[in-house]
Amino acid sequence: MTQVPSLSDHIRDLIAQRQPGYTLPQAFYTDQDIFDLDLDRIFRRHWIPAGSARRIPEKGQWYTFEIDQDSIIITRGFDDQVHAMHNVCRHRGSRVCYEQEGQGKGLVCPYHAWAYALDGTLLGAGAMPCEFDKSEHGLKQIPVKVYHGTVMIYLGEGDPPDISDVENDIDPMLSIFELDKAKMAARMVWDIPANWKLVVENFAECYHCGPAHPEYCSVMAVAQPGTTGAAAHKKSFDQMTRDWETYAKSLGHPTGKVDTSDSSIHTCSRIPIGEGKLSQSKGGKQIAPTMGRFKANDGGITAARIHPANYWINACDHAVSFRFTPIAPQKTIQEVTWLVHPDAVEGRDYRVEELTWLWNVTTEQDKMIIVQNQKGVNSSAYEPGPYSSVEFATNYFVNWYLDKLQA
Amino acid sequence: MTQVPSLSDHIRDLIAQRQPGYTLPQAFYTDQDIFDLDLDRIFRRHWIPAGSARRIPEKGQWYTFEIDQDSIIITRGFDDQVHAMHNVCRHRGSRVCYEQEGQGKGLVCPYHAWAYALDGTLLGAGAMPCEFDKSEHGLKQIPVKVYHGTVMIYLGEGDPPDISDVENDIDPMLSIFELDKAKMAARMVWDIPANWKLVVENFAECYHCGPAHPEYCSVMAVAQPGTTGAAAHKKSFDQMTRDWETYAKSLGHPTGKVDTSDSSIHTCSRIPIGEGKLSQSKGGKQIAPTMGRFKANDGGITAARIHPANYWINACDHAVSFRFTPIAPQKTIQEVTWLVHPDAVEGRDYRVEELTWLWNVTTEQDKMIIVQNQKGVNSSAYEPGPYSSVEFATNYFVNWYLDKLQA
Amino acid sequence: MTQVPSLSDHIRDLIAQRQPGYTLPQAFYTDQDIFDLDLDRIFRRHWIPAGSARRIPEKGQWYTFEIDQDSIIITRGFDDQVHAMHNVCRHRGSRVCYEQEGQGKGLVCPYHAWAYALDGTLLGAGAMPCEFDKSEHGLKQIPVKVYHGTVMIYLGEGDPPDISDVENDIDPMLSIFELDKAKMAARMVWDIPANWKLVVENFAECYHCGPAHPEYCSVMAVAQPGTTGAAAHKKSFDQMTRDWETYAKSLGHPTGKVDTSDSSIHTCSRIPIGEGKLSQSKGGKQIAPTMGRFKANDGGITAARIHPANYWINACDHAVSFRFTPIAPQKTIQEVTWLVHPDAVEGRDYRVEELTWLWNVTTEQDKMIIVQNQKGVNSSAYEPGPYSSVEFATNYFVNWYLDKLQA
Repeated sequence: MTQVPSLSDHIRDLIAQRQPGYTLPQAFYTDQDIFDLDLDRIFRRHWIPAGSARRIPEKGQWYTFEIDQDSIIITRGFDDQVHAMHNVCRHRGSRVCYEQEGQGKGLVCPYHAWAYALDGTLLGAGAMPCEFDKSEHGLKQIPVKVYHGTVMIYLGEGDPPDISDVENDIDPMLSIFELDKAKMAARMVWDIPANWKLVVENFAECYHCGPAHPEYCSVMAVAQPGTTGAAAHKKSFDQMTRDWETYAKSLGHPTGKVDTSDSSIHTCSRIPIGEGKLSQSKGGKQIAPTMGRFKANDGGITAARIHPANYWINACDHAVSFRFTPIAPQKTIQEVTWLVHPDAVEGRDYRVEELTWLWNVTTEQDKMIIVQNQKGVNSSAYEPGPYSSVEFATNYFVNWYLDKLQA
Repeated sequence: MTQVPSLSDHIRDLIAQRQPGYTLPQAFYTDQDIFDLDLDRIFRRHWIPAGSARRIPEKGQWYTFEIDQDSIIITRGFDDQVHAMHNVCRHRGSRVCYEQEGQGKGLVCPYHAWAYALDGTLLGAGAMPCEFDKSEHGLKQIPVKVYHGTVMIYLGEGDPPDISDVENDIDPMLSIFELDKAKMAARMVWDIPANWKLVVENFAECYHCGPAHPEYCSVMAVAQPGTTGAAAHKKSFDQMTRDWETYAKSLGHPTGKVDTSDSSIHTCSRIPIGEGKLSQSKGGKQIAPTMGRFKANDGGITAARIHPANYWINACDHAVSFRFTPIAPQKTIQEVTWLVHPDAVEGRDYRVEELTWLWNVTTEQDKMIIVQNQKGVNSSAYEPGPYSSVEFATNYFVNWYLDKLQA
Repeated sequence: MTQVPSLSDHIRDLIAQRQPGYTLPQAFYTDQDIFDLDLDRIFRRHWIPAGSARRIPEKGQWYTFEIDQDSIIITRGFDDQVHAMHNVCRHRGSRVCYEQEGQGKGLVCPYHAWAYALDGTLLGAGAMPCEFDKSEHGLKQIPVKVYHGTVMIYLGEGDPPDISDVENDIDPMLSIFELDKAKMAARMVWDIPANWKLVVENFAECYHCGPAHPEYCSVMAVAQPGTTGAAAHKKSFDQMTRDWETYAKSLGHPTGKVDTSDSSIHTCSRIPIGEGKLSQSKGGKQIAPTMGRFKANDGGITAARIHPANYWINACDHAVSFRFTPIAPQKTIQEVTWLVHPDAVEGRDYRVEELTWLWNVTTEQDKMIIVQNQKGVNSSAYEPGPYSSVEFATNYFVNWYLDKLQA
């Protein structure tokens, strides 16, 4: 488990086989050795999302995050800082936290009662020999930071990479939401029996929105092909966007798209939802108080990501964060978290059912699609196929992925 | 998945270990590499059964057939022909048909709406680059033919083998049923957690009928040991058969057994059910209109097969077709289809419960037996055992199988 | 399945990695090759427990015992002897006994009715060729003996080892219970998704009793840390033990601990339950008639084992036998059997619920703990940790295990 997989000739051959503009060869979606390499090169060498820090606003709260065979405890210490450590007792290797979340003054392993502080320091262990050094037996620490409300962790060896440039690119568009103070209104988790890359490839393109997501298309102008739809869509999307940008700028809100270097996967952009629409909700109506420092709900959404495994898609009245986490070659966890203004009160200012409607139904649809994609890819008859022009971001992700495998 | 497994020294040794007249060494029933070889040598180099064409009598109807990790779409086109193609979209590899059966004007992939004709031709794909050639992106074609109502497909490379000699052997005994026009009255599927060869070995012998199949023995004289049974079985089975052949010939019906070459697995024969019995039913009574060109129900059954994975066992009033399909080393699908005269009406001319009674109860019993056979074979204590004289056809199958592995 | 795994360089390296006084490296708890080696070196080269002979007090009774992929039939023949044989028909390898227990005049394979005597002798097989020799096709025999009511079998090649020295060590403390005549009052089975060594390591130490087993601690003085507990525990445990030994000796009962050689894993000892306590029951009250040749219930328990996979923990009024059997690298069966005086009558002399209370609740707790231990050990972050001084017997087991692997 702890071996770093090397880039074998077999894998080099597979990488060489990939035709530009085409999906990946089968083995990338099925094989354990490539999955291990993905974990090493894509997940253990980058800052990756590990859930929302807004799940644990109070001191002493914690939750666990699962990736591959690992479990990681994310706590809020009495120093009000977020900490991350491996959920493996240093005595005989038991999970310390059995549950998915909890709250307490510390963490006590249920097996033999080894007691740890919320930062993982070993505080007590009975009947240990004299030479036993508690300071060497704390829970294994994991570098952690909170970026706009999202817990980011680094699971690799050595120092985590400096991604301040990337963060600086994104900050202006996200900081206006004040996500670090937001309230978590809802959280849902999907267990998807498919390779994590099929999940990310799906999320990165809207070529499938027409066939698969009627609800999403009813809300998002960008998802509608052409400009000859219902009355609301008579204007071309480009014109609508230009008009909206003028309006948003007049409020001092950010617009446009962050320019990023060719080799980076991070993105950030704002676009209008659609003519007369204020939120990603049924009919586009506003469903929660306007967040952060917005002067008004300008009807735009902000889409951003740092790593392929995370996304934010925020309307002005609620922010939605996504994470995709690999568990096995054909098992991926998708977590979606809905955030609202810290003062918003359930029932009065928003209703969870309204808030979660669009991404709940859309994720259910995506799960079904992705499962059937995996089944087909598992066939002896599968061969890589060509991406359409609309799937540019999916193709971009696949290129980035292959670059990183070889890095 | 697409690699053709080679005959390794390991497998040559295993083949050499097999003692004539004995069951196979354990690995043949358990190992993935031998399963892959079985797929290659036994299933991908022969015409194999893929269900009944009578499931799709109407233009636009289709069903899916599963083998190993593959799914194949069997359609009836608007040309009234049966077509077969891989259920893998040429875009990103999704299953095109999610369901087990359906009907429509074409096949549209639910992921990105690539639209295919019922013969697999790609008709439409949005937003593809100019150089994209639709004619090169149809669903992958599979050679298919309908033989006496059974869909036969060829999954191998190159041209399918010519088996007209085999078909000519069998034709005379099957054609009288006019199965190509028959009506599908019922269909059942069993998921058997055992190697496909254990399923076939079981089906090929009646040594187990006495201990395991009381219902079958109550109907079929051939299943009863000796000739000193109840009143109905006082005559010896040989004498009964001679009398029945005289009668059947007087009606112009086929009798006897097709002579086949030593190296072929195909068989076809007719025998009487039993004294005074007209069908494979409770008490042997006729339960549906006499089929095809039979002058009268002569009380015989017709047993035939082309490949170890298929069988027909037809009384004069209903035909039953069987297929056994490998899914994994210890997983096999058995499908049973009941056919009746095309004009027969459910409730008036036959009742599904009566029709399916014998093979439903018998297959349930066989499934239980085979599962316990697999468990025992998985034991460290298993060693090949000797076949009885009554299991000649099972032994013949095993010999044929080993020949084909080495072919 | 029948290959004897060799001690590869890989495994030698793993053994060399183990630090004295620490838990084992991860692979010992997860890998198939080490599991195979465990089966070979630890389970197939020793007498191992295979259930209680008291399940089959009557002639013709049998039960099946599962280990790895094997099933073994344990019978009581008409010679009143216990027999053991592989549950694999010598014809085509089917399981002969499908159920977990039964009773009959012999064993008939449900597949083709091959009939075996209760000692495995083949009595009948229909339609076999002249040269077939029934005497060579009996069920494969397994050496078996009954040791104080526990069925012990030997699954290895050649003659079983002579363990009379070990038995002689234990006999004096167990024979007083007359377990060979006892009545089985209850039996429970747990399916634990963890490596068998984690189950044994757990059972061998009481460091976890405080955190995990409140019921056990409420009964057993030895499980309570220190000597300054409630009124009942004011005397030190050592003093209590000395007083109890004086009393037990005055009755002629065995006391103390058997001295065993350094290389053996067998143990046997007697200790007091606790001040004023007579049994392992709620409140420590006697819950069944005093067993065997005890002059009185002296309030002690007798703990013994021959192999790491078996234990007896007997109060004077009921005996409890444990077995731990490996099924897969992460699957272990734990069976617990409760025995009482042969004349004891349910409802009058004992109640099953009272009898099973302590070990039922304790085993449920242990199962939960062990499952979480396995999960943590599966993590990439797991590394061997140090045993406390209280876990000396667990450390001893691990040392013994590594010695035997290399034997």
